[in-house]
Amino acid sequence: MSTDILNELPATEIVEKIGNGSITAEAVTQACLDRIAVREDTVKAWAYIDPDYALAQARILDDTEVKGPLHGLPIGVKDVIDTSDMPTQMQSPAYEDHQPKTDAACVAMLRAAGAVILGKTVTCEFAGSFPGPTTNPQNPAHTPGGSSSGSGAAVADFMVHGAFGTQTGGSVLRPASFCGTVGYKPTYNLINRSGLMFAAENLDTIGLLTRTVDDADLLMSVLLNRPRSKVIPNDANPKIGLCRTHHWNSALPETIAAMDDSVVRLTAAGAEIVDITLPDSFADLSPARNVLNDFERSRVMADLWQNERDQLSDNIAKQLGNGTPMDFATYRDAVVLANDSRMQLDDVFGDVDFILAPSATGEAPIGLDYTGNPQFQGCWTILHVPTISLPTHTGPTGLPVGIQLVGRRWQDETMLSWSRWVMDKLGTAR
Amino acid sequence: MSTDILNELPATEIVEKIGNGSITAEAVTQACLDRIAVREDTVKAWAYIDPDYALAQARILDDTEVKGPLHGLPIGVKDVIDTSDMPTQMQSPAYEDHQPKTDAACVAMLRAAGAVILGKTVTCEFAGSFPGPTTNPQNPAHTPGGSSSGSGAAVADFMVHGAFGTQTGGSVLRPASFCGTVGYKPTYNLINRSGLMFAAENLDTIGLLTRTVDDADLLMSVLLNRPRSKVIPNDANPKIGLCRTHHWNSALPETIAAMDDSVVRLTAAGAEIVDITLPDSFADLSPARNVLNDFERSRVMADLWQNERDQLSDNIAKQLGNGTPMDFATYRDAVVLANDSRMQLDDVFGDVDFILAPSATGEAPIGLDYTGNPQFQGCWTILHVPTISLPTHTGPTGLPVGIQLVGRRWQDETMLSWSRWVMDKLGTAR
Repeated sequence: MSTDILNELPATEIVEKIGNGSITAEAVTQACLDRIAVREDTVKAWAYIDPDYALAQARILDDTEVKGPLHGLPIGVKDVIDTSDMPTQMQSPAYEDHQPKTDAACVAMLRAAGAVILGKTVTCEFAGSFPGPTTNPQNPAHTPGGSSSGSGAAVADFMVHGAFGTQTGGSVLRPASFCGTVGYKPTYNLINRSGLMFAAENLDTIGLLTRTVDDADLLMSVLLNRPRSKVIPNDANPKIGLCRTHHWNSALPETIAAMDDSVVRLTAAGAEIVDITLPDSFADLSPARNVLNDFERSRVMADLWQNERDQLSDNIAKQLGNGTPMDFATYRDAVVLANDSRMQLDDVFGDVDFILAPSATGEAPIGLDYTGNPQFQGCWTILHVPTISLPTHTGPTGLPVGIQLVGRRWQDETMLSWSRWVMDKLGTAR
Repeated sequence: MSTDILNELPATEIVEKIGNGSITAEAVTQACLDRIAVREDTVKAWAYIDPDYALAQARILDDTEVKGPLHGLPIGVKDVIDTSDMPTQMQSPAYEDHQPKTDAACVAMLRAAGAVILGKTVTCEFAGSFPGPTTNPQNPAHTPGGSSSGSGAAVADFMVHGAFGTQTGGSVLRPASFCGTVGYKPTYNLINRSGLMFAAENLDTIGLLTRTVDDADLLMSVLLNRPRSKVIPNDANPKIGLCRTHHWNSALPETIAAMDDSVVRLTAAGAEIVDITLPDSFADLSPARNVLNDFERSRVMADLWQNERDQLSDNIAKQLGNGTPMDFATYRDAVVLANDSRMQLDDVFGDVDFILAPSATGEAPIGLDYTGNPQFQGCWTILHVPTISLPTHTGPTGLPVGIQLVGRRWQDETMLSWSRWVMDKLGTAR
């Protein structure tokens, strides 16, 4: 087959073709590198990439007889996650050329399964909100979202088949919605965080940017040592909880339209849609998330705040300035509210199969200084539930607009199964 | 005053005296170093210590006009917690001379408050159960417990005023009980874990080894930016839940005696004691904790398992051999059981002020190969509740035997307040 579209094939196809010998790992990596060579000047998705080293990894895999479940699959790694053979620079001059000793847990697991670690993707500074240089691959005048900016852009632009991101507020799902990929934030703590530099450890969740639900599911099956999620029959009739959340008044027309259209088409496909209204107390989760974020980050970065403050952006310095003097009572109230809210989730879900919610306020905003409003993602992040953004719609300027599915804690496979079913019904927008 | 007992004074007195100028930080650090010079050949509590550098830190603090709340207080740091100016070696040849870039959050917070980071204390290999060289300071033929072996031994032996430990099963409270110190494991995640090498992130909790409850409270007030915990009036009449746990049949006579004696004397002091029987399902928490431990550690150490297996002990290799092929369904069942159990804690506590439980099976076992049975500590660790071991009793050979107090999640100050009250009534055993 022609190798010039190997970078565009789903990960599931790549590993199948490498497994049966019809393509080589080297050809796949080369296809990704070729795409990057053409597009990187515009997209600026990569914080570190060494093409020769990537190809060397692929050739070693081609010479290996025993094939792992991800044999030869190129993967990008957000640059707040440690890699033993590439620097991890946090998009900060304080970490310039910083070289960790070992791979993060998630990287080591994929590498052991045969993945090619293609390079490190651009993050906002310390996975916060001060952006790196990455642009939206659909229109470079627009933000790709953040903080997993490079992972979202690289996957959407066919530079790599999948990438790790992290979400503390909305840092996986928002770039997914803005760039037009699948963005999956598992249940809190499901992907082991050893080797991740924390932003706020009660929130930080490692997630995946992929182009298909199946690809996310494939990677999770390796990370967790579980079977692939079940395929739901085409004629299933799910009960879907439509949840506009307490942030609905910030939804732009294209997000309202994406929700309305999803309801119409999923109903036509056999779904029963019921409205879910979140408890009033959940309205306080968004400020509580900010409290956790600021208080915990001021601990994580206490050394840098004391000793390398001149290396920090004004943006993150402001956050540390908020968090450092914050009193514990304020923090504890936020932690307890979050925990109490999680204990109400069974009642919130009732008997629905999954929740349908807005993924982002709308299309990616114009400009590269602001990565967008995280509230539609953040209210679920603090609840520790699995969520996924699906690339089902576009907005007025043709940029992607996602929808969000939300599942029950520790029942991620069920949510992924329904996500596949929803994508079958709604289709990819572009 | 004589400076030759400065190493024996409580931390609260040290910071008061340095604060009012009656002693210097240098004299305090020198007293600790003098004690270490005499005793370290026997106790072997330190993985890394540079006396000149410790004194240099103290002299800088003596030259500083603005005094922090821990100004000049020497602190030990378990050698799985990052320090920017000392190696962090995990008691493993794989981490020989490993130098982290930044201080862990907890270290940076104490340093910013004026603490002298005296050195790194011996840990079991990767905070597991394969011991380092440390001996029990009360009798070097006996284990100090683990995995925070050096922190427990150094604090008990008056080498340092307080030290960080970590607990994934029983690694703070067991060394405290065995060595005769206070060992405090806060509510899960209360002390920020950034810069800690995980064992199992759903369990790992940074805690403190100190000689008094007040000293632990002082350090927490700095770490969390909270007021000191309230002093409970001498004539209070607490309602205490006596909880022998599902592991009572492993309690040795000295632990049974310590519990019986505590009940008698606390009742005489005005307490009402009621029996608390844990739900039957809690009996499964101990095997569930092992599942979390093995599954998560196999992720944390996946890189080392793949690439430096020859550097690992047989002990930890066995654990990784268990965890690596474990299926996700087993792991999820353990996670869900743990979460469901936590949701029952309000019912378990009822209206008691705190729970009284065994701290360890008995005295420290003879020999240095086995750090002791962690079940009396582990069943509370997986519940994420705050716990503390108090050095109230001794056993048949004169070695320490602690008792354990257990509090409600996020209500650590209340437990610390009652711990102070209990210590007032029962006294320190030696």
